[in-house]
Amino acid sequence: MTASPTPLRRADRARQVADVLRQQIHAGTVTDALPSEAELAADYAVSRNTVREALGLLRDEGLIDRAPRVGTHVTQRKFDHGLDALRGLKETLRGQGEVRNEVRAATRLRPPPAVARRLRLSPGESVVYLERLRFLGDLPLSLDLTYLVPDIGAEILDRDLAGNDVFALIEEISGGPLGSADIALEAVTADAHSAATLQLPEGGAILLLERLTRLEDGRPVDLEYIRLRGDRLTMRGNLVRPTDTGRRLI
Amino acid sequence: MTASPTPLRRADRARQVADVLRQQIHAGTVTDALPSEAELAADYAVSRNTVREALGLLRDEGLIDRAPRVGTHVTQRKFDHGLDALRGLKETLRGQGEVRNEVRAATRLRPPPAVARRLRLSPGESVVYLERLRFLGDLPLSLDLTYLVPDIGAEILDRDLAGNDVFALIEEISGGPLGSADIALEAVTADAHSAATLQLPEGGAILLLERLTRLEDGRPVDLEYIRLRGDRLTMRGNLVRPTDTGRRLI
Repeated sequence: MTASPTPLRRADRARQVADVLRQQIHAGTVTDALPSEAELAADYAVSRNTVREALGLLRDEGLIDRAPRVGTHVTQRKFDHGLDALRGLKETLRGQGEVRNEVRAATRLRPPPAVARRLRLSPGESVVYLERLRFLGDLPLSLDLTYLVPDIGAEILDRDLAGNDVFALIEEISGGPLGSADIALEAVTADAHSAATLQLPEGGAILLLERLTRLEDGRPVDLEYIRLRGDRLTMRGNLVRPTDTGRRLI
Repeated sequence: MTASPTPLRRADRARQVADVLRQQIHAGTVTDALPSEAELAADYAVSRNTVREALGLLRDEGLIDRAPRVGTHVTQRKFDHGLDALRGLKETLRGQGEVRNEVRAATRLRPPPAVARRLRLSPGESVVYLERLRFLGDLPLSLDLTYLVPDIGAEILDRDLAGNDVFALIEEISGGPLGSADIALEAVTADAHSAATLQLPEGGAILLLERLTRLEDGRPVDLEYIRLRGDRLTMRGNLVRPTDTGRRLI
Protein backbone atom coordinates (compact mmCIF):
# COMPACT_ATOMS: atom_id res chain seq x y z
CA MET A 1 0.00 0.00 0.00
CA THR A 2 1.32 3.43 -0.91
CA ALA A 3 0.77 6.18 1.61
CA SER A 4 -0.85 9.35 0.34
CA PRO A 5 0.27 11.94 2.84
CA THR A 6 -0.88 15.52 3.08
CA PRO A 7 1.71 18.23 2.35
CA LEU A 8 3.55 19.42 5.46
CA ARG A 9 3.01 22.91 6.75
CA ARG A 10 5.78 25.30 7.69
CA ALA A 11 5.33 24.54 11.40
CA ASP A 12 5.97 20.86 10.64
CA ARG A 13 9.14 21.66 8.72
CA ALA A 14 10.27 23.98 11.53
CA ARG A 15 9.86 21.10 14.02
CA GLN A 16 11.97 18.87 11.75
CA VAL A 17 14.76 21.44 11.67
CA ALA A 18 14.54 22.18 15.40
CA ASP A 19 14.81 18.49 16.36
CA VAL A 20 18.02 17.93 14.43
CA LEU A 21 19.53 21.21 15.66
CA ARG A 22 18.59 20.38 19.26
CA GLN A 23 20.43 17.08 18.97
CA GLN A 24 23.51 18.83 17.55
CA ILE A 25 23.52 21.28 20.47
CA HIS A 26 23.24 18.43 23.00
CA ALA A 27 25.95 16.45 21.24
CA GLY A 28 28.28 19.46 21.31
CA THR A 29 28.54 19.54 17.50
CA VAL A 30 27.17 23.07 17.71
CA THR A 31 28.75 24.67 20.75
CA ASP A 32 28.55 28.43 20.63
CA ALA A 33 27.46 30.39 17.55
CA LEU A 34 24.98 28.68 15.27
CA PRO A 35 25.44 28.87 11.49
CA SER A 36 23.70 31.81 9.80
CA GLU A 37 20.06 31.60 8.72
CA ALA A 38 21.19 31.33 5.10
CA GLU A 39 23.52 28.42 5.86
CA LEU A 40 20.85 26.62 7.89
CA ALA A 41 18.31 27.18 5.12
CA ALA A 42 20.71 25.55 2.65
CA ASP A 43 21.63 22.65 5.00
CA TYR A 44 18.01 21.82 5.72
CA ALA A 45 16.63 22.69 2.27
CA VAL A 46 13.98 24.96 3.77
CA SER A 47 13.11 28.67 3.54
CA ARG A 48 14.66 31.24 5.86
CA ASN A 49 11.21 31.78 7.37
CA THR A 50 11.17 28.12 8.36
CA VAL A 51 14.66 28.45 9.85
CA ARG A 52 13.51 31.44 11.89
CA GLU A 53 10.52 29.49 13.16
CA ALA A 54 12.75 26.55 14.11
CA LEU A 55 15.14 28.83 15.99
CA GLY A 56 12.13 30.36 17.76
CA LEU A 57 11.15 26.92 19.09
CA LEU A 58 14.65 26.36 20.50
CA ARG A 59 14.69 29.86 21.97
CA ASP A 60 11.35 29.17 23.71
CA GLU A 61 12.95 26.07 25.26
CA GLY A 62 15.76 28.26 26.59
CA LEU A 63 18.42 26.48 24.53
CA ILE A 64 19.53 29.43 22.41
CA ASP A 65 19.54 33.21 22.37
CA ARG A 66 19.07 35.42 19.32
CA ALA A 67 20.03 39.05 18.93
CA PRO A 68 20.40 41.35 15.93
CA ARG A 69 24.01 41.53 14.71
CA VAL A 70 25.23 39.11 17.40
CA GLY A 71 23.42 36.19 15.78
CA THR A 72 22.26 33.00 17.42
CA HIS A 73 24.14 31.48 20.34
CA VAL A 74 23.81 28.39 22.51
CA THR A 75 22.87 29.57 26.01
CA GLN A 76 22.88 26.32 27.89
CA ARG A 77 24.13 22.78 27.62
CA LYS A 78 22.33 19.86 29.17
CA PHE A 79 23.89 17.20 31.34
CA ASP A 80 23.49 13.49 30.64
CA HIS A 81 22.00 11.12 33.21
CA GLY A 82 22.49 7.45 32.44
CA LEU A 83 19.60 5.05 31.88
CA ASP A 84 21.98 2.10 31.64
CA ALA A 85 22.99 1.74 35.27
CA LEU A 86 21.82 2.69 38.74
CA ARG A 87 23.82 5.72 39.84
CA GLY A 88 23.27 8.69 42.13
CA LEU A 89 23.44 12.26 40.83
CA LYS A 90 26.89 12.92 42.30
CA GLU A 91 28.29 9.75 40.71
CA THR A 92 26.59 10.66 37.42
CA LEU A 93 28.02 14.18 37.31
CA ARG A 94 31.52 13.27 38.48
CA GLY A 95 33.99 15.59 36.79
CA GLN A 96 31.32 18.14 35.81
CA GLY A 97 31.41 20.15 39.04
CA GLU A 98 30.51 19.92 42.70
CA VAL A 99 27.13 18.42 43.60
CA ARG A 100 25.77 19.71 46.90
CA ASN A 101 22.42 19.20 48.56
CA GLU A 102 20.28 21.72 50.40
CA VAL A 103 18.52 19.58 53.01
CA ARG A 104 14.93 20.82 53.31
CA ALA A 105 13.73 17.98 55.54
CA ALA A 106 15.32 15.06 57.38
CA THR A 107 12.91 13.49 59.82
CA ARG A 108 11.13 10.36 60.99
CA LEU A 109 7.46 10.10 60.06
CA ARG A 110 4.59 7.64 59.86
CA PRO A 111 4.47 6.66 56.17
CA PRO A 112 1.29 6.76 54.10
CA PRO A 113 -0.02 3.18 53.70
CA ALA A 114 1.02 3.10 50.02
CA VAL A 115 4.64 3.92 50.93
CA ALA A 116 4.67 1.37 53.76
CA ARG A 117 3.49 -1.33 51.34
CA ARG A 118 6.16 -0.58 48.76
CA LEU A 119 8.91 -0.65 51.39
CA ARG A 120 7.35 -3.84 52.87
CA LEU A 121 7.07 -2.30 56.34
CA SER A 122 4.99 -3.70 59.19
CA PRO A 123 2.05 -1.66 60.51
CA GLY A 124 3.31 1.01 62.88
CA GLU A 125 6.87 1.12 61.49
CA SER A 126 8.11 4.62 60.73
CA VAL A 127 10.23 5.79 57.81
CA VAL A 128 12.91 8.40 57.51
CA TYR A 129 11.88 11.15 55.12
CA LEU A 130 14.39 13.38 53.34
CA GLU A 131 13.78 16.30 51.07
CA ARG A 132 16.76 17.70 49.23
CA LEU A 133 17.28 20.35 46.59
CA ARG A 134 20.32 19.23 44.65
CA PHE A 135 22.73 21.67 42.99
CA LEU A 136 25.55 21.37 40.51
CA GLY A 137 27.56 24.39 41.60
CA ASP A 138 24.96 27.17 41.85
CA LEU A 139 22.50 25.51 39.50
CA PRO A 140 19.51 23.67 41.00
CA LEU A 141 19.11 20.41 39.08
CA SER A 142 16.66 18.28 41.04
CA LEU A 143 14.28 18.15 43.97
CA ASP A 144 14.31 14.74 45.65
CA LEU A 145 11.72 13.31 48.07
CA THR A 146 13.10 10.18 49.75
CA TYR A 147 11.51 7.53 52.00
CA LEU A 148 13.96 5.17 53.71
CA VAL A 149 13.34 2.01 55.75
CA PRO A 150 13.78 2.72 59.48
CA ASP A 151 16.98 0.79 60.21
CA ILE A 152 19.02 2.35 57.42
CA GLY A 153 17.19 5.67 57.68
CA ALA A 154 18.04 6.14 61.37
CA GLU A 155 21.76 5.89 60.62
CA ILE A 156 21.51 8.15 57.56
CA LEU A 157 20.17 10.98 59.75
CA ASP A 158 23.60 11.13 61.41
CA ARG A 159 25.56 11.36 58.15
CA ASP A 160 26.60 14.24 55.89
CA LEU A 161 23.47 14.58 53.76
CA ALA A 162 24.65 17.83 52.17
CA GLY A 163 27.69 16.29 50.54
CA ASN A 164 26.73 12.72 49.64
CA ASP A 165 24.44 10.70 47.42
CA VAL A 166 21.95 8.67 49.47
CA PHE A 167 23.11 5.62 47.48
CA ALA A 168 26.67 5.93 48.80
CA LEU A 169 25.38 6.32 52.37
CA ILE A 170 23.10 3.27 52.10
CA GLU A 171 26.03 1.18 50.85
CA GLU A 172 28.25 2.42 53.70
CA ILE A 173 25.59 1.62 56.30
CA SER A 174 24.40 -1.69 54.87
CA GLY A 175 27.95 -2.82 54.20
CA GLY A 176 27.23 -4.03 50.70
CA PRO A 177 26.32 -2.80 47.24
CA LEU A 178 22.84 -1.88 46.10
CA GLY A 179 21.09 -4.34 43.83
CA SER A 180 18.66 -2.78 41.35
CA ALA A 181 15.82 -0.29 41.09
CA ASP A 182 12.44 -0.10 39.40
CA ILE A 183 12.07 3.25 37.70
CA ALA A 184 9.15 5.12 36.18
CA LEU A 185 9.87 8.23 34.19
CA GLU A 186 7.25 10.83 33.29
CA ALA A 187 7.19 14.28 31.72
CA VAL A 188 5.05 16.72 33.71
CA THR A 189 4.54 20.46 33.62
CA ALA A 190 6.04 22.05 36.72
CA ASP A 191 3.49 23.37 39.22
CA ALA A 192 4.20 26.92 40.41
CA HIS A 193 5.81 25.94 43.71
CA SER A 194 8.07 23.23 42.26
CA ALA A 195 9.10 25.60 39.47
CA ALA A 196 10.03 28.32 41.95
CA THR A 197 11.98 25.86 44.09
CA LEU A 198 13.96 24.63 41.09
CA GLN A 199 14.35 28.19 39.69
CA LEU A 200 12.62 26.97 36.55
CA PRO A 201 10.37 29.24 34.46
CA GLU A 202 6.74 28.55 35.43
CA GLY A 203 5.19 26.02 33.11
CA GLY A 204 8.59 24.49 32.38
CA ALA A 205 8.82 20.73 31.85
CA ILE A 206 10.09 18.31 34.50
CA LEU A 207 11.29 14.72 34.25
CA LEU A 208 9.57 13.06 37.19
CA LEU A 209 11.42 9.91 38.21
CA GLU A 210 9.96 7.46 40.68
CA ARG A 211 12.58 4.97 41.82
CA LEU A 212 12.29 2.03 44.22
CA THR A 213 15.77 0.79 45.08
CA ARG A 214 16.64 -2.59 46.55
CA LEU A 215 19.67 -4.05 48.30
CA GLU A 216 21.46 -6.92 46.60
CA ASP A 217 19.26 -9.40 48.50
CA GLY A 218 16.13 -7.86 46.94
CA ARG A 219 14.89 -5.98 50.00
CA PRO A 220 13.41 -2.55 49.05
CA VAL A 221 15.00 0.18 51.17
CA ASP A 222 14.64 3.50 49.35
CA LEU A 223 11.61 4.99 47.58
CA GLU A 224 12.26 8.30 45.82
CA TYR A 225 10.28 10.88 43.88
CA ILE A 226 12.77 12.96 41.92
CA ARG A 227 11.97 16.09 39.88
CA LEU A 228 14.72 16.71 37.33
CA ARG A 229 14.80 19.98 35.41
CA GLY A 230 13.84 19.16 31.85
CA ASP A 231 15.92 22.03 30.48
CA ARG A 232 19.09 20.79 32.18
CA LEU A 233 19.11 16.99 32.06
CA THR A 234 18.77 14.38 29.34
CA MET A 235 18.39 10.68 30.15
CA ARG A 236 20.52 8.51 27.87
CA GLY A 237 20.72 4.78 27.37
CA ASN A 238 20.94 1.88 24.98
CA LEU A 239 18.10 -0.56 24.35
CA VAL A 240 18.60 -4.04 22.93
CA ARG A 241 16.06 -5.77 20.69
CA PRO A 242 14.60 -8.75 22.58
CA THR A 243 15.06 -11.98 20.67
CA ASP A 244 11.39 -12.95 21.01
CA THR A 245 10.24 -10.02 18.86
CA GLY A 246 12.93 -10.24 16.19
CA ARG A 247 11.63 -12.15 13.19
CA ARG A 248 14.57 -14.37 12.44
CA LEU A 249 13.83 -14.99 8.80
CA ILE A 250 17.31 -15.94 7.78
CA MET B 1 26.81 15.68 60.76
CA THR B 2 23.18 16.23 61.64
CA ALA B 3 21.10 18.10 59.10
CA SER B 4 19.16 21.09 60.40
CA PRO B 5 16.37 21.43 57.86
CA THR B 6 13.83 24.19 57.59
CA PRO B 7 10.19 23.32 58.30
CA LEU B 8 8.24 22.32 55.21
CA ARG B 9 5.48 24.53 53.89
CA ARG B 10 2.05 23.33 52.91
CA ALA B 11 2.96 23.33 49.22
CA ASP B 12 5.82 20.94 50.02
CA ARG B 13 3.52 18.61 51.92
CA ALA B 14 0.97 18.77 49.11
CA ARG B 15 3.68 17.68 46.66
CA GLN B 16 4.55 14.74 48.93
CA VAL B 17 0.91 13.61 48.99
CA ALA B 18 0.42 14.16 45.26
CA ASP B 19 3.49 12.08 44.33
CA VAL B 20 2.35 9.02 46.26
CA LEU B 21 -1.24 9.36 45.01
CA ARG B 22 -0.02 9.72 41.42
CA GLN B 23 1.92 6.48 41.76
CA GLN B 24 -1.17 4.70 43.14
CA ILE B 25 -3.26 5.91 40.21
CA HIS B 26 -0.64 4.71 37.71
CA ALA B 27 -0.30 1.37 39.49
CA GLY B 28 -4.06 0.86 39.39
CA THR B 29 -4.30 0.70 43.20
CA VAL B 30 -6.67 3.66 42.97
CA THR B 31 -8.83 3.06 39.90
CA ASP B 32 -12.00 5.11 40.00
CA ALA B 33 -13.16 7.05 43.08
CA LEU B 34 -10.43 8.37 45.35
CA PRO B 35 -10.83 8.09 49.12
CA SER B 36 -12.53 11.06 50.80
CA GLU B 37 -10.54 14.11 51.86
CA ALA B 38 -10.89 13.03 55.49
CA GLU B 39 -9.52 9.54 54.77
CA LEU B 40 -6.63 10.93 52.74
CA ALA B 41 -5.85 13.44 55.50
CA ALA B 42 -5.65 10.56 57.99
CA ASP B 43 -3.60 8.29 55.68
CA TYR B 44 -1.06 11.01 54.94
CA ALA B 45 -1.15 12.66 58.39
CA VAL B 46 -1.78 16.08 56.87
CA SER B 47 -4.55 18.69 57.06
CA ARG B 48 -7.54 18.64 54.73
CA ASN B 49 -6.27 21.87 53.19
CA THR B 50 -3.08 20.07 52.25
CA VAL B 51 -5.10 17.21 50.75
CA ARG B 52 -7.10 19.69 48.70
CA GLU B 53 -3.91 21.32 47.45
CA ALA B 54 -2.47 17.90 46.51
CA LEU B 55 -5.63 16.96 44.62
CA GLY B 56 -5.45 20.32 42.84
CA LEU B 57 -1.97 19.44 41.55
CA LEU B 58 -3.21 16.13 40.12
CA ARG B 59 -6.26 17.83 38.63
CA ASP B 60 -3.98 20.36 36.90
CA GLU B 61 -2.09 17.42 35.38
CA GLY B 62 -5.40 16.08 34.04
CA LEU B 63 -5.19 12.89 36.11
CA ILE B 64 -8.32 13.41 38.21
CA ASP B 65 -11.59 15.30 38.20
CA ARG B 66 -13.30 16.83 41.21
CA ALA B 67 -16.95 17.82 41.60
CA PRO B 68 -19.15 18.66 44.57
CA ARG B 69 -21.12 15.62 45.80
CA VAL B 70 -19.60 13.35 43.13
CA GLY B 71 -16.18 13.47 44.79
CA THR B 72 -12.81 12.86 43.17
CA HIS B 73 -12.40 10.46 40.27
CA VAL B 74 -9.57 9.19 38.12
CA THR B 75 -10.09 10.59 34.60
CA GLN B 76 -7.28 8.93 32.76
CA ARG B 77 -4.83 6.10 33.08
CA LYS B 78 -1.41 6.18 31.55
CA PHE B 79 0.13 3.48 29.40
CA ASP B 80 3.53 1.97 30.13
CA HIS B 81 6.34 2.06 27.58
CA GLY B 82 9.28 -0.20 28.37
CA LEU B 83 12.80 1.11 28.94
CA ASP B 84 14.15 -2.43 29.21
CA ALA B 85 13.97 -3.51 25.59
CA LEU B 86 13.74 -2.03 22.10
CA ARG B 87 10.13 -2.25 20.99
CA GLY B 88 7.84 -0.31 18.68
CA LEU B 89 4.65 1.33 19.95
CA LYS B 90 2.36 -1.33 18.50
CA GLU B 91 4.40 -4.12 20.12
CA THR B 92 4.44 -2.17 23.39
CA LEU B 93 0.68 -1.65 23.49
CA ARG B 94 -0.27 -5.14 22.33
CA GLY B 95 -3.52 -6.11 24.02
CA GLN B 96 -4.39 -2.52 24.97
CA GLY B 97 -6.17 -1.62 21.73
CA GLU B 98 -5.50 -0.96 18.07
CA VAL B 99 -2.52 1.20 17.15
CA ARG B 100 -2.95 3.00 13.85
CA ASN B 101 -0.82 5.64 12.17
CA GLU B 102 -1.93 8.74 10.31
CA VAL B 103 0.80 9.16 7.70
CA ARG B 104 1.53 12.90 7.38
CA ALA B 105 4.58 12.50 5.17
CA ALA B 106 6.32 9.66 3.34
CA THR B 107 8.89 10.93 0.91
CA ARG B 108 12.50 10.89 -0.26
CA LEU B 109 14.55 13.93 0.66
CA ARG B 110 18.11 15.19 0.87
CA PRO B 111 19.01 14.86 4.54
CA PRO B 112 20.52 17.67 6.60
CA PRO B 113 24.28 17.01 7.01
CA ALA B 114 23.80 16.09 10.70
CA VAL B 115 21.29 13.37 9.81
CA ALA B 116 23.50 12.04 7.00
CA ARG B 117 26.43 11.74 9.42
CA ARG B 118 24.42 9.82 12.02
CA LEU B 119 23.12 7.40 9.40
CA ARG B 120 26.67 7.15 7.92
CA LEU B 121 25.49 8.12 4.43
CA SER B 122 27.74 9.21 1.59
CA PRO B 123 27.45 12.76 0.23
CA GLY B 124 24.50 12.98 -2.14
CA GLU B 125 22.62 9.96 -0.76
CA SER B 126 18.97 10.65 0.00
CA VAL B 127 16.90 9.41 2.94
CA VAL B 128 13.28 8.40 3.25
CA TYR B 129 11.42 10.69 5.62
CA LEU B 130 8.24 9.63 7.39
CA GLU B 131 6.01 11.64 9.65
CA ARG B 132 3.31 9.77 11.49
CA LEU B 133 0.75 10.67 14.13
CA ARG B 134 0.17 7.48 16.08
CA PHE B 135 -3.14 6.64 17.73
CA LEU B 136 -4.31 4.08 20.22
CA GLY B 137 -7.93 3.83 19.12
CA ASP B 138 -9.02 7.47 18.85
CA LEU B 139 -6.35 8.79 21.20
CA PRO B 140 -3.26 10.44 19.69
CA LEU B 141 -0.23 9.18 21.63
CA SER B 142 2.83 10.21 19.68
CA LEU B 143 4.14 12.19 16.74
CA ASP B 144 7.09 10.44 15.07
CA LEU B 145 9.62 11.96 12.65
CA THR B 146 11.65 9.18 11.01
CA TYR B 147 14.74 9.22 8.76
CA LEU B 148 15.56 5.91 7.06
CA VAL B 149 18.61 4.85 5.05
CA PRO B 150 17.78 4.80 1.30
CA ASP B 151 17.88 1.04 0.61
CA ILE B 152 15.47 0.08 3.40
CA GLY B 153 13.50 3.32 3.12
CA ALA B 154 12.70 2.79 -0.57
CA GLU B 155 11.05 -0.53 0.20
CA ILE B 156 9.21 0.83 3.24
CA LEU B 157 7.46 3.39 1.02
CA ASP B 158 5.59 0.46 -0.61
CA ARG B 159 4.41 -1.07 2.66
CA ASP B 160 1.39 -0.52 4.91
CA LEU B 161 2.66 2.37 7.00
CA ALA B 162 -0.73 3.00 8.59
CA GLY B 163 -0.94 -0.39 10.26
CA ASN B 164 2.63 -1.35 11.16
CA ASP B 165 5.53 -0.36 13.38
CA VAL B 166 8.54 0.77 11.34
CA PHE B 167 10.59 -1.75 13.36
CA ALA B 168 8.54 -4.68 12.05
CA LEU B 169 8.85 -3.39 8.48
CA ILE B 170 12.64 -2.95 8.76
CA GLU B 171 12.97 -6.51 10.03
CA GLU B 172 10.80 -7.83 7.17
CA ILE B 173 12.82 -5.94 4.59
CA SER B 174 16.28 -6.56 6.00
CA GLY B 175 15.47 -10.22 6.70
CA GLY B 176 16.89 -10.15 10.21
CA PRO B 177 16.26 -8.73 13.66
CA LEU B 178 17.21 -5.24 14.77
CA GLY B 179 20.20 -4.94 17.05
CA SER B 180 20.06 -2.07 19.51
CA ALA B 181 19.33 1.65 19.74
CA ASP B 182 20.87 4.67 21.41
CA ILE B 183 18.15 6.68 23.08
CA ALA B 184 17.99 10.17 24.58
CA LEU B 185 14.91 11.10 26.56
CA GLU B 186 13.97 14.68 27.44
CA ALA B 187 11.01 16.47 28.98
CA VAL B 188 9.98 19.53 26.96
CA THR B 189 6.99 21.85 27.01
CA ALA B 190 4.87 21.33 23.91
CA ASP B 191 5.00 24.18 21.41
CA ALA B 192 1.58 25.33 20.18
CA HIS B 193 1.63 23.42 16.90
CA SER B 194 2.86 20.12 18.37
CA ALA B 195 0.28 20.42 21.18
CA ALA B 196 -2.54 20.97 18.67
CA THR B 197 -1.38 18.03 16.55
CA LEU B 198 -1.31 15.72 19.58
CA GLN B 199 -4.59 17.18 20.94
CA LEU B 200 -2.67 18.07 24.09
CA PRO B 201 -3.52 21.17 26.15
CA GLU B 202 -1.11 23.96 25.17
CA GLY B 203 1.85 24.07 27.52
CA GLY B 204 1.49 20.35 28.28
CA ALA B 205 4.62 18.28 28.81
CA ILE B 206 6.08 15.97 26.20
CA LEU B 207 8.57 13.13 26.46
CA LEU B 208 10.89 13.76 23.53
CA LEU B 209 12.69 10.58 22.54
CA GLU B 210 15.56 10.61 20.08
CA ARG B 211 16.41 7.09 18.95
CA LEU B 212 19.10 5.85 16.57
CA THR B 213 18.42 2.21 15.73
CA ARG B 214 20.93 -0.24 14.29
CA LEU B 215 20.68 -3.59 12.57
CA GLU B 216 22.26 -6.57 14.29
CA ASP B 217 25.53 -5.93 12.39
CA GLY B 218 25.75 -2.44 13.92
CA ARG B 219 24.74 -0.44 10.85
CA PRO B 220 22.51 2.55 11.76
CA VAL B 221 19.36 2.52 9.63
CA ASP B 222 16.66 4.52 11.44
CA LEU B 223 16.89 7.90 13.20
CA GLU B 224 13.69 9.00 14.94
CA TYR B 225 12.44 12.02 16.84
CA ILE B 226 9.39 10.92 18.80
CA ARG B 227 7.07 13.18 20.81
CA LEU B 228 5.16 11.13 23.38
CA ARG B 229 2.28 12.71 25.28
CA GLY B 230 3.45 13.16 28.85
CA ASP B 231 -0.07 12.80 30.20
CA ARG B 232 -0.57 9.42 28.51
CA LEU B 233 2.70 7.52 28.66
CA THR B 234 5.14 6.52 31.40
CA MET B 235 8.52 4.98 30.63
CA ARG B 236 9.33 2.06 32.92
CA GLY B 237 12.45 0.03 33.44
CA ASN B 238 14.85 -1.59 35.85
CA LEU B 239 18.37 -0.36 36.50
CA VAL B 240 21.13 -2.51 37.94
CA ARG B 241 23.88 -1.17 40.18
CA PRO B 242 27.20 -1.42 38.30
CA THR B 243 29.76 -3.42 40.25
CA ASP B 244 32.45 -0.74 39.90
CA THR B 245 30.48 1.76 41.99
CA GLY B 246 29.31 -0.65 44.70
CA ARG B 247 31.64 -0.37 47.68
CA ARG B 248 32.10 -4.00 48.49
CA LEU B 249 32.96 -3.62 52.15
CA ILE B 250 32.14 -7.15 53.19
